[in-house]
Amino acid sequence: MTHIILSGANGAMGRTIARLAGETHGVKIVAGLDKNTQGAADFPIYASPEQLPEIKGVLVDFSHPSAFDGILRYALDTETPLVMCTTGLAPEQLDAIRAAAKRIAVFHSANMSIGINLLADLARRAAALLQDQFDIEIIERHHNKKIDAPSGTALMLADAMREALSEQPRYVYDRHAVRERRQKNDIGFSSVRGGTIVGEHEILFAGTDELIELRHTATSKEVFAVGALRAAVYLENKGPGLYNMSNLIQEV
Amino acid sequence: MTHIILSGANGAMGRTIARLAGETHGVKIVAGLDKNTQGAADFPIYASPEQLPEIKGVLVDFSHPSAFDGILRYALDTETPLVMCTTGLAPEQLDAIRAAAKRIAVFHSANMSIGINLLADLARRAAALLQDQFDIEIIERHHNKKIDAPSGTALMLADAMREALSEQPRYVYDRHAVRERRQKNDIGFSSVRGGTIVGEHEILFAGTDELIELRHTATSKEVFAVGALRAAVYLENKGPGLYNMSNLIQEV
Amino acid sequence: MTHIILSGANGAMGRTIARLAGETHGVKIVAGLDKNTQGAADFPIYASPEQLPEIKGVLVDFSHPSAFDGILRYALDTETPLVMCTTGLAPEQLDAIRAAAKRIAVFHSANMSIGINLLADLARRAAALLQDQFDIEIIERHHNKKIDAPSGTALMLADAMREALSEQPRYVYDRHAVRERRQKNDIGFSSVRGGTIVGEHEILFAGTDELIELRHTATSKEVFAVGALRAAVYLENKGPGLYNMSNLIQEV
Amino acid sequence: MTHIILSGANGAMGRTIARLAGETHGVKIVAGLDKNTQGAADFPIYASPEQLPEIKGVLVDFSHPSAFDGILRYALDTETPLVMCTTGLAPEQLDAIRAAAKRIAVFHSANMSIGINLLADLARRAAALLQDQFDIEIIERHHNKKIDAPSGTALMLADAMREALSEQPRYVYDRHAVRERRQKNDIGFSSVRGGTIVGEHEILFAGTDELIELRHTATSKEVFAVGALRAAVYLENKGPGLYNMSNLIQEV
Repeated sequence: MTHIILSGANGAMGRTIARLAGETHGVKIVAGLDKNTQGAADFPIYASPEQLPEIKGVLVDFSHPSAFDGILRYALDTETPLVMCTTGLAPEQLDAIRAAAKRIAVFHSANMSIGINLLADLARRAAALLQDQFDIEIIERHHNKKIDAPSGTALMLADAMREALSEQPRYVYDRHAVRERRQKNDIGFSSVRGGTIVGEHEILFAGTDELIELRHTATSKEVFAVGALRAAVYLENKGPGLYNMSNLIQEV
Repeated sequence: MTHIILSGANGAMGRTIARLAGETHGVKIVAGLDKNTQGAADFPIYASPEQLPEIKGVLVDFSHPSAFDGILRYALDTETPLVMCTTGLAPEQLDAIRAAAKRIAVFHSANMSIGINLLADLARRAAALLQDQFDIEIIERHHNKKIDAPSGTALMLADAMREALSEQPRYVYDRHAVRERRQKNDIGFSSVRGGTIVGEHEILFAGTDELIELRHTATSKEVFAVGALRAAVYLENKGPGLYNMSNLIQEV
Repeated sequence: MTHIILSGANGAMGRTIARLAGETHGVKIVAGLDKNTQGAADFPIYASPEQLPEIKGVLVDFSHPSAFDGILRYALDTETPLVMCTTGLAPEQLDAIRAAAKRIAVFHSANMSIGINLLADLARRAAALLQDQFDIEIIERHHNKKIDAPSGTALMLADAMREALSEQPRYVYDRHAVRERRQKNDIGFSSVRGGTIVGEHEILFAGTDELIELRHTATSKEVFAVGALRAAVYLENKGPGLYNMSNLIQEV
Repeated sequence: MTHIILSGANGAMGRTIARLAGETHGVKIVAGLDKNTQGAADFPIYASPEQLPEIKGVLVDFSHPSAFDGILRYALDTETPLVMCTTGLAPEQLDAIRAAAKRIAVFHSANMSIGINLLADLARRAAALLQDQFDIEIIERHHNKKIDAPSGTALMLADAMREALSEQPRYVYDRHAVRERRQKNDIGFSSVRGGTIVGEHEILFAGTDELIELRHTATSKEVFAVGALRAAVYLENKGPGLYNMSNLIQEV
């Protein structure tokens, strides 16, 4: 049974994690942290790390960069493994994570979805094998309010494949504007926008009379909560070090 | 039984039509036209229309613009219905088709695939119904040698929907370059290129928690032969007039 | 502006409709009906039809079969158009709907999603055109708690196509058990079950080197709320009669 | 440059391999074997192994089980690496392959497509990671003449995942007949049949609000030729042993 201290317990992601933990074998939330200590949780919520009683567990943080320093200090002082899910950290905070990882176990990933990280891993393997004879394209779909194109995750997937390619790829975004024939080492990106699509990423490997398509579809943000719980279980008995979703996936 | 005179009988499409006609109930090729009169066909092939014996049938032309004048004259002189599948005609040849259609039945379509024309028809209907609450996107996939993007067929599909939209759409090709939020009346185009993909066209209608996708996939050029035979049967008993795939589809 | 009286205002679907109406031009909820009259709605909620003040509007019912008789009597007495969305009605209640439709406008559909009804309409058209040369298959995906296979909607889609087919189709459910070659007039069904999939229905038309796929994906039950509002607007100025989603779609 | 001796050079697959080898860097066919020694090949074709001149190369066999004994004897006598692609071998011939692999390098795989074998490898990895929280389904599509359901390849994919699952899966084929709720360790199979579809296999992992789909589509039999050439290059410098596509993929 993995005990979890949940930071950001009354935020949207915190509540999702709490609900999910209640339905999952082998994990139990033993305490929460949140400025707002009210709420319907079945565990006590404290306003700050200093108020926490002495407990053992993995600290999962889905709060805000402004809470980062207190969270990290608590983890170091109590030798508590830390799953850091808060996004938008400053460069010096990222440095502090790397420094802390020399003394405690820290988990930190650009994208907490297991599915997306698995997709990146599979795509890397496929790219390594197919690179000479298949063309690689990435197609992503998101809701009509998303401005950036391609998505950050699409670029993450391309970067994962880039590591496995013997020839450096060229990323091609706007084929209409380019009007030239596809080159062998291109990775093409297509961005589809419409409705309320939460997120879909597809990697296409197109060869001679043969297609391989690897696709991930998320229909809610719950996938990040699933990933956070999985990371907590993974981190529980790890020694000091910096871990991420790619490590988790490859150790299975 | 529809009797067919096949012009361009020894070309690639001509041979495909001949093979397909042999496997199809209700059609029979009774004569061929081709500069090259040799070959394994089970019907006689003549070098020019003047050499044809007196026969009744529908003339299907899949030859070359240089043969156009002779073909059209024969059709007019003998009051033979004409399915004109040759592409790359000059503007004055297109005018001649329209003029001829006052005296005989002529079938002419930008794309002879029944599937693609059906897709255009379904997309038009869907667009009429969904226009206020759904976003429209077109995604097409073709082989890695295709230079133009989007494909001509993708534009044909968009134009078919345009007719049904109360607000004029804006066609958006390069989302990466644009970096702005999708507008309500945008039709977005995505062009994927790779391997030997013959042709895939998808129209996506994305609404609130709901997607409708209409997709056509061709894996060979045989679809054009199927369409030509279908057009011949359709045209057999028609009076003078200009007909196309859209008419054929809507009369079923 | 279409005024709506919303029956079942405090149920899950009722609240979704109320939220959606607030975001939609041209519709306004002027009163609610629900046993539970409390709640955060921005319109008054009454416990029973008799308590309603004299108002004009379209009555949308998403409540329970036990409320049916009172709802229908109110609609008849006040000549209020009625959109009946409650499912699980008894045969005599369905008879009462048909009888009422001789005096007032009633809207009643097996599935209130516009998207699914549009899909049925498009599939019917495609089946009419393609029936001699394409094979028809239906593939549906739902969550892992769904027991019946195929889904009722998959059967509704098949029945819509059946009307358009000149030869009666044979429905084939279990291909593994059958172990015989596909027959020309088969409609095959495949049922995929997994995770939390809300609902996906695909109709495949497979021909010679050519595929046409029509697919609907719902990621929440909001699609039924959208359909109910659309039906209310449609019904507002209709005379007596029984209307359904298929009528609505074909009048666009 | 890998030199290849091509057995079955005038068969359909042999000609495809010869054409493909001409377009591929690093491989060259130096001799052919076929009962029919005529043909347009740019390499000499011999009627039997005894007639071959003394040459070095990898022997690729795409002929017939009746030629098996002579082929294997030649490979053993001349210490020539052997890629055995002929299907329908008898059990004692399979035994002979295992015995020969103690003295020479032999490559033998149930399915020579790199894509399908890659798919099996990716599916096995995904299953290992996702098994507790995702449901697994396999959907395959083939032409309307295929009688067996599911396809042999679908079963091969399931068996590859089975190795990675901690709980033995139950294979479920006919959901309509079963009428019970999906169980956690089920692998469901769906078989779609229509038109001329060459072969499509999809593995679906369905979790909470998340889908991962891995799909392979072949549009011709050329994929087997590609695999055979790749196997020949792979085998060229290997020592004695029995190798298959799974080994090839994992060594990349």
